[in-house]
Amino acid sequence: MEHARDTLAFWFEFASPYCYLTAMRIERLAAAAGIRIAWQPFLLGPIFQRRPNQPSPAQDAPPPEARYRQRDVERLCLDYGLPLTWPSRYPRISLLGSRVALLAADEGWAPAFVKAVYHASFAEDRDIGAEPVIAAILSALGHAPEPVIARATTPANKARLAAQVEQAVAAGIFGAPSFIAADGELFWGNDRLEQALAWATAKRG
Amino acid sequence: MEHARDTLAFWFEFASPYCYLTAMRIERLAAAAGIRIAWQPFLLGPIFQRRPNQPSPAQDAPPPEARYRQRDVERLCLDYGLPLTWPSRYPRISLLGSRVALLAADEGWAPAFVKAVYHASFAEDRDIGAEPVIAAILSALGHAPEPVIARATTPANKARLAAQVEQAVAAGIFGAPSFIAADGELFWGNDRLEQALAWATAKRG
Repeated sequence: MEHARDTLAFWFEFASPYCYLTAMRIERLAAAAGIRIAWQPFLLGPIFQRRPNQPSPAQDAPPPEARYRQRDVERLCLDYGLPLTWPSRYPRISLLGSRVALLAADEGWAPAFVKAVYHASFAEDRDIGAEPVIAAILSALGHAPEPVIARATTPANKARLAAQVEQAVAAGIFGAPSFIAADGELFWGNDRLEQALAWATAKRG
Repeated sequence: MEHARDTLAFWFEFASPYCYLTAMRIERLAAAAGIRIAWQPFLLGPIFQRRPNQPSPAQDAPPPEARYRQRDVERLCLDYGLPLTWPSRYPRISLLGSRVALLAADEGWAPAFVKAVYHASFAEDRDIGAEPVIAAILSALGHAPEPVIARATTPANKARLAAQVEQAVAAGIFGAPSFIAADGELFWGNDRLEQALAWATAKRG
């Protein structure tokens, strides 16, 4: 994928708590670095499913690792000053939200929508897989929900999200959040956000 | 495991490149924080083997993830100013080094020995699973290698390393590097070293 040289692509999956941590921080850090963010929704489920015996870190982690993962997110939320209510059903289904986010990215309202979906899921424990919840988020942001959801669920937009997944795989992505700089350099994990922005800044000049 | 309140336990596996990154940084950062490090060698192999369908991240990662992991370590070495030559056989066998490291930790020479083993493996691509390599490292540090290796490979010391693994599992450890504060708080990954030291500092008072 080609990007302008001052752009970093942020590949996010709404089910991922580490993407929540990134989504809430990336605008401020990118602005400070003078880097534009390309908001790229995608789904990890179809990627994990292609890995025989390679379980999903969210769904199939052994208990000590699952407990650790939740504690790690709790600590990071404390460090970042972010609210956290662990989703009562985890992971949440991210399909509709991701389809809407594709439109939002086209039309310039991705940051507000994406942050609102993460907040609903990880601060308010709302079921972001349910259409009424996505509709309520859209309404709160000033969008008439029905036409947006109708556009998000056309066959063409569904195919577009499937194509996002293929594009992610082609770029070497295997987890989320992931960041891709204009030169194709891939970074994985909320822990690499700062490094990815520094890379994008250094390569921009 | 009980530690003094100003101590952070550093659990390391010689096969892990992320432990190399930590081993080369931890003394300086711990000294700056006023925290003592308890050097705790252990083996990840027996822990991974207990996880059905839960492959080793080093040995069984799908190719994109394995490539990414190596690139990630390369970038971090550049950031930290550390040399890196990826081991031509990966992962290396860490058994003898870990047995010696237990003695080293008892006798106060763990930092020098542990760093020398990581340097041999990840900067010089030497086979740290081979006894002559461990012997050469010991010699270079001023230890007569044969008596040390003899003590390291007694049944009692072998059992002690096996007990380390059980202690790690009991503490919730599932990867390396891991850090455990005096209050039992667990941190996983080179990325969490600074956070673990900050935690240990805050809880010390």
